[in-house]
Amino acid sequence: MQNFIFYNPVKIYFGKGQIAALAGVLPKNSRILLTYGYGSIKKNGVYDQVMQALAGYDVSEFGGIEPNPSYETLMQAVGIVRDKKIDFILAIGGGSVIDGTKFISAAAHFKGEPWDILTKQAEFNEVVPFGCVLTLPAAGSEMNCGAVISRKSSRDKLVFGSPKIFPRFAILDPAVTFSLSPRQTANGIVDAFVHVLEQYLTYPVNAPLQDRFAEGILLTLIEEAPKVWRKGDDLDARANIMWCATMALNDLIGMGVPQDWTTHRLGHEVTACFGLDHGQSLAVLLPNVLQVRRVQKHEKLLQYAERIFGIKQGDEDVRIDAAITKTREFFASLDMKLHLRDYAIDETAIPVLLEQLQRHSLTGLGERGDIDLNESEKIYRASL
Amino acid sequence: MQNFIFYNPVKIYFGKGQIAALAGVLPKNSRILLTYGYGSIKKNGVYDQVMQALAGYDVSEFGGIEPNPSYETLMQAVGIVRDKKIDFILAIGGGSVIDGTKFISAAAHFKGEPWDILTKQAEFNEVVPFGCVLTLPAAGSEMNCGAVISRKSSRDKLVFGSPKIFPRFAILDPAVTFSLSPRQTANGIVDAFVHVLEQYLTYPVNAPLQDRFAEGILLTLIEEAPKVWRKGDDLDARANIMWCATMALNDLIGMGVPQDWTTHRLGHEVTACFGLDHGQSLAVLLPNVLQVRRVQKHEKLLQYAERIFGIKQGDEDVRIDAAITKTREFFASLDMKLHLRDYAIDETAIPVLLEQLQRHSLTGLGERGDIDLNESEKIYRASL
Repeated sequence: MQNFIFYNPVKIYFGKGQIAALAGVLPKNSRILLTYGYGSIKKNGVYDQVMQALAGYDVSEFGGIEPNPSYETLMQAVGIVRDKKIDFILAIGGGSVIDGTKFISAAAHFKGEPWDILTKQAEFNEVVPFGCVLTLPAAGSEMNCGAVISRKSSRDKLVFGSPKIFPRFAILDPAVTFSLSPRQTANGIVDAFVHVLEQYLTYPVNAPLQDRFAEGILLTLIEEAPKVWRKGDDLDARANIMWCATMALNDLIGMGVPQDWTTHRLGHEVTACFGLDHGQSLAVLLPNVLQVRRVQKHEKLLQYAERIFGIKQGDEDVRIDAAITKTREFFASLDMKLHLRDYAIDETAIPVLLEQLQRHSLTGLGERGDIDLNESEKIYRASL
Repeated sequence: MQNFIFYNPVKIYFGKGQIAALAGVLPKNSRILLTYGYGSIKKNGVYDQVMQALAGYDVSEFGGIEPNPSYETLMQAVGIVRDKKIDFILAIGGGSVIDGTKFISAAAHFKGEPWDILTKQAEFNEVVPFGCVLTLPAAGSEMNCGAVISRKSSRDKLVFGSPKIFPRFAILDPAVTFSLSPRQTANGIVDAFVHVLEQYLTYPVNAPLQDRFAEGILLTLIEEAPKVWRKGDDLDARANIMWCATMALNDLIGMGVPQDWTTHRLGHEVTACFGLDHGQSLAVLLPNVLQVRRVQKHEKLLQYAERIFGIKQGDEDVRIDAAITKTREFFASLDMKLHLRDYAIDETAIPVLLEQLQRHSLTGLGERGDIDLNESEKIYRASL
């Protein structure tokens, strides 16, 4: 395997009822800002549980963080943090709210134009500490130090990260996910599944334990997905999906192995330009990344075929085809659409997407940095 | 699965050449105490690499920490830490040196009798921060906050732990393990293997991801063991064994699942009374724990049989017998002895061992707390 450095200090409180632990973990006398999305937490009981645990604290609120959290919205929260001298932020939501909160945390005391944190990887020093209560298992943001932020005005969707923006803690109560819609549940499962594949389906470097861990997450997601999709209240299955999504992107399975984030990078542009859900963009693109890159990913695709889907018969190309088909079938079983045309996107979109990639300097993607614009175009065209 | 809290802030530097990273991670102007064992690090080049990285630091040394590190020895190091006002300890070694260093760290500024930390779980506040350079993959001590300390005068071998004694960092360079003897290598593999089984072979709680992770470590250990045992320099295989041993006991696979540390607890008494290597005691006892507890562990034993050894034929008892036999064969393939009699220990040892268990209040062991002295006696007798 390759050399690596691993560090993840996020403290996880996992299980039903763990929101009550908030009372013990938040710094006393903190001025707390709650951040959340469109207010579903006020309908499903999560907000009430949080407020009960925070009795006696000085709590302000900032709702309205949208999916694919926008710089425009987040800068309003930055203003509140500065005005009210907030000293702890509690994010309640999924990846969008947590990612957005990471940006608020980094931007609040940043000297200069916070947009530079995203476009120029500008260094930030003092951050506002934050924790989170996860409501949607998907992004893994609750246990990592990266974030993806969009800017509506310029159709940008950009990544930033730093050990300074690890959550201080994350509360993972699977019972709060009972009220997720099938679409949210499916998007989350696909997101986690693709996160794993992006750290697994590259080329072999003799890292068998990382492979087994990755395969363990994939197998568990496939087994548990039917138990939660369209069904709310299987606590064990919800818990298993939640823990899978966290482990899929807390850096562990990616240690010492090559990675290929092409699907996410290409998907971000589809979301930024055409508004697909993040998970929807991944379900369309991932199988075509595997198809277009089947030569480069040959050995790991065969391993994926055998260990995840039990495909051992037929010549190697047949097995790889079967594995890609099985992947599509898994996504389809969650009602995910598999083509851009299903979202009324046709080939006129291609130049728009390629221009975006170029503008964001995403021209050397893949585990070997050899996915140029031509190769990206092939993937987008195969996805039409 | 069960509710859990997970926290592990140890920063891991993994790979060949990582000892050089020491220069960047140790606090400047620290007064550093190196702790190590019997000096093999001065023959295999590790000491030289460390001293090169520490050029310019104020470095003292304390060697001679023995396998099953003793209170008597460690208290000498505590004296040095106090006298020299040491403010950082760097442990260079395997589990014994790192465990011992954890005790030195906790005891140095403890007000009162440090032995109480072990016997009365006395709380300690200020600790001396420490990091480690791992030389023997086995105990997992490099990425956890527990330790096992012995007292020669009273034949005690006792456990303590606290988040305060997490290493600040751990350097894992698999190349430094090339010089391990076959016996050391085998002991380490068995220790890691048994750590996994003690968190896996209990009863099902619907925690499929934890199961898959545990199985991933077991399968990797079985696959990689023949590549390193009696052969020194397969860097990839040494790296895989090293990462397995760390992941086997950094708390991750044990989150949300029942655990059964009977083999370790019973083994500690065998080591304390009769001087077997820690790994040797485990190789003898573990198969007999599985045999005596086969009813209580029935379902997980069947899963272990199928997923680790591919045993699917025969009735359930036959499959469980086969899995226990395969476990013994794996240990035997590393030249581990399988009976206490192989170490000239006969039944006259039984009352001695049981008295030790009683004295250490180890009378309610196992995942359900129902392994009393009678049950422990059965395990010891089956191991004769």
